[in-house]
Amino acid sequence: MRRGTNLPRMGDFNQSVILEAIRRSGEGLSRIELVEATGLSAQTVTNITRRLLDDGFIREAGRTINGPGKPRVTLRLVPESGFSVGVHLDPAVMTFVLLDLAGRVVRRVGVRTPKTDPRQIIEAMASTIETLIAGSGVDRERIAGIGVAAPGPLDPDKGTVIDPPKLIGWHRVPLRAVLAEATGLPVTLEKDTTAAAVGELWTRHGSSDESFVFVYLGTGIGAALARDGDVVRGSTRNLGEIGHIVVDPEGPPCLCGSRGCVEVMCTPQAIVERAERAGVLPDDREANDVEAVEARFTELCERAAAGDDRAAHVLRQSAGDFAALTAVLTNMLDVDRVVFGGPFWARLAAVFLDEIPGRLDRLSATRAVHSLPVAGSVVGVDVGAVGAACVVLDSALTPRTTDLLLED
Amino acid sequence: MRRGTNLPRMGDFNQSVILEAIRRSGEGLSRIELVEATGLSAQTVTNITRRLLDDGFIREAGRTINGPGKPRVTLRLVPESGFSVGVHLDPAVMTFVLLDLAGRVVRRVGVRTPKTDPRQIIEAMASTIETLIAGSGVDRERIAGIGVAAPGPLDPDKGTVIDPPKLIGWHRVPLRAVLAEATGLPVTLEKDTTAAAVGELWTRHGSSDESFVFVYLGTGIGAALARDGDVVRGSTRNLGEIGHIVVDPEGPPCLCGSRGCVEVMCTPQAIVERAERAGVLPDDREANDVEAVEARFTELCERAAAGDDRAAHVLRQSAGDFAALTAVLTNMLDVDRVVFGGPFWARLAAVFLDEIPGRLDRLSATRAVHSLPVAGSVVGVDVGAVGAACVVLDSALTPRTTDLLLED
Repeated sequence: MRRGTNLPRMGDFNQSVILEAIRRSGEGLSRIELVEATGLSAQTVTNITRRLLDDGFIREAGRTINGPGKPRVTLRLVPESGFSVGVHLDPAVMTFVLLDLAGRVVRRVGVRTPKTDPRQIIEAMASTIETLIAGSGVDRERIAGIGVAAPGPLDPDKGTVIDPPKLIGWHRVPLRAVLAEATGLPVTLEKDTTAAAVGELWTRHGSSDESFVFVYLGTGIGAALARDGDVVRGSTRNLGEIGHIVVDPEGPPCLCGSRGCVEVMCTPQAIVERAERAGVLPDDREANDVEAVEARFTELCERAAAGDDRAAHVLRQSAGDFAALTAVLTNMLDVDRVVFGGPFWARLAAVFLDEIPGRLDRLSATRAVHSLPVAGSVVGVDVGAVGAACVVLDSALTPRTTDLLLED
Repeated sequence: MRRGTNLPRMGDFNQSVILEAIRRSGEGLSRIELVEATGLSAQTVTNITRRLLDDGFIREAGRTINGPGKPRVTLRLVPESGFSVGVHLDPAVMTFVLLDLAGRVVRRVGVRTPKTDPRQIIEAMASTIETLIAGSGVDRERIAGIGVAAPGPLDPDKGTVIDPPKLIGWHRVPLRAVLAEATGLPVTLEKDTTAAAVGELWTRHGSSDESFVFVYLGTGIGAALARDGDVVRGSTRNLGEIGHIVVDPEGPPCLCGSRGCVEVMCTPQAIVERAERAGVLPDDREANDVEAVEARFTELCERAAAGDDRAAHVLRQSAGDFAALTAVLTNMLDVDRVVFGGPFWARLAAVFLDEIPGRLDRLSATRAVHSLPVAGSVVGVDVGAVGAACVVLDSALTPRTTDLLLED
């Protein structure tokens, strides 16, 4: 049953709206500009900004004289009024960032993922977080929490990671509880793909209401969906499991019983294997060695960039597979645009941004209605960790109309 | 930029919430029960129900004495306080319904789609609508509008149908404008699949906040998505174009250049062709004759139901293809459940409900987290027309948190 709303809910929502407007403006806004931006009355804006000033989230930052009348006071975010920690758990590397309220990376640490059991990995995670916080000099009281981005699927109720194919030995590991216990900070667990899309939404400029599908290129390939200024999580926070979409019926067989799935065509390992089959890379790598795959992948991309036609041909074929995948997603989801990102994206960006837009346009069911812009994420290779930290800030600060509803 | 909210918006929203609660209750609710159901204060409920009584949307329907204290007055929807017309434009048949505010079909007409040009079809549509309204005796003033469900893709800004593959000669036909001109009533154009999902959401009992993917079996196959009590339309109202998802890499070639797509595996025509290739049906049909396809399809399903093993085998193979399609959708979208419906659904229901749940479970990325119930739509074969009429009622009456936001 749909619930109603009341005045206190309205007040909280409008406060989030105003803080969001000031944060997104970068340079700050005057009270009059806030009235224009939010549609709220001058009295409401005055009351709410006074509260935000008292709580230290914003500050007065100079006056502008604009013709006759009272000078306008610019209100600006206080980035040091809040922080969050973001962790990206990847089979090869763990990345840690400390973010301020403006979404800036204050401090960053990257470490190789230990080849030990999950509990020891979580202990290593906790001690790296302590080092990160201590080194930053930030008051622990100001840290809203820790966001962890992990490969899906996840069990959100239990806070566990369920059998991610590339994380050996991770079977229903209660990551959230163990890390919260070890650090004493609240922990949010989120899929790496979802975290990346939150990072994109939190960080980028322009309209926050444009919908996009985020195609995530990590050790595995995943997708996320943003709509109406928010990332859609799905019923169990597992939206975006696209590993078994068939992108090429002539492709190699997959363990799922089909052929040519994303899992055997589009992952960095699949791209390296394609190059090996084509004789572009030597065929002497140890199977499933994630570091060796990454090294070969980098070599392939570097050779393509340096003008090696055969290497470039492999990447163009992969771009075709990604265009087929993206068309399935955009035809199903009907979004405004497509964003590519994730740890492996930067190395493919040049070839993919050249090849994919035209191919996607030809496969688009809505090409008669609108074009589909394709772009790389505004967040770099650390998008998993930055996104995870943004998940914490976003859940605390972004206005959501559903927060207006009275609880059961 | 996210907009704020204010008191008048809040009042309108809460009024929709109360009307929705009374409508969904069927038997009516007392004011005390409304307080419990919506979380609103007793004073707010009293004020809003007085307004709804004055406007004739609800009436007092008896008193219940429940222990000491004042007897409770039951408030019930007045179904005759509003109506809408729904039209389903299908290549073979046009279906027309008049719905009251309780979602009941007051009157229904079905006609063969004339084999003429689009303008003449729209004229026939307008005159059938006039006959429908006149025959019902309903006051035209009480009709909120006409909803038309048509095969996608659509251009929602222009209100046009764009080249639907099975509607010959329909190239960017301005259906909305021509029909509004001919009838003098406001017209909403919606994809048949989206309309069907709105009908499901508007009509079914139980929690309206459960998410589901709706797999629509019409002349073409499409999907729709419901989440948080609303059907997700997508950026251009074209969400759910799934015709070129590959369900079987060994399947026949498709015009798109791939093989084994939904378009060549799952449509009624594709199922009939499969039966013809297997020698289960004679191979003497005229290509692209929609009526002949429908007759053969019915024959195949009847033979399977009567115990013909070879006919049943064809339908079980099709169920496997639909399970593969559904798994792509549910793994991508992460919903609570799956609903099948559309004009061709009833004939497949027995075999599909037997075959699909187990196959889908094996292909589900979230099977460790939750099971995926599969069911047939609560709306019958007229789901397109009923859904289209519900689109009109839904847009007028369903509370949406986004309606709380102040306009630009």
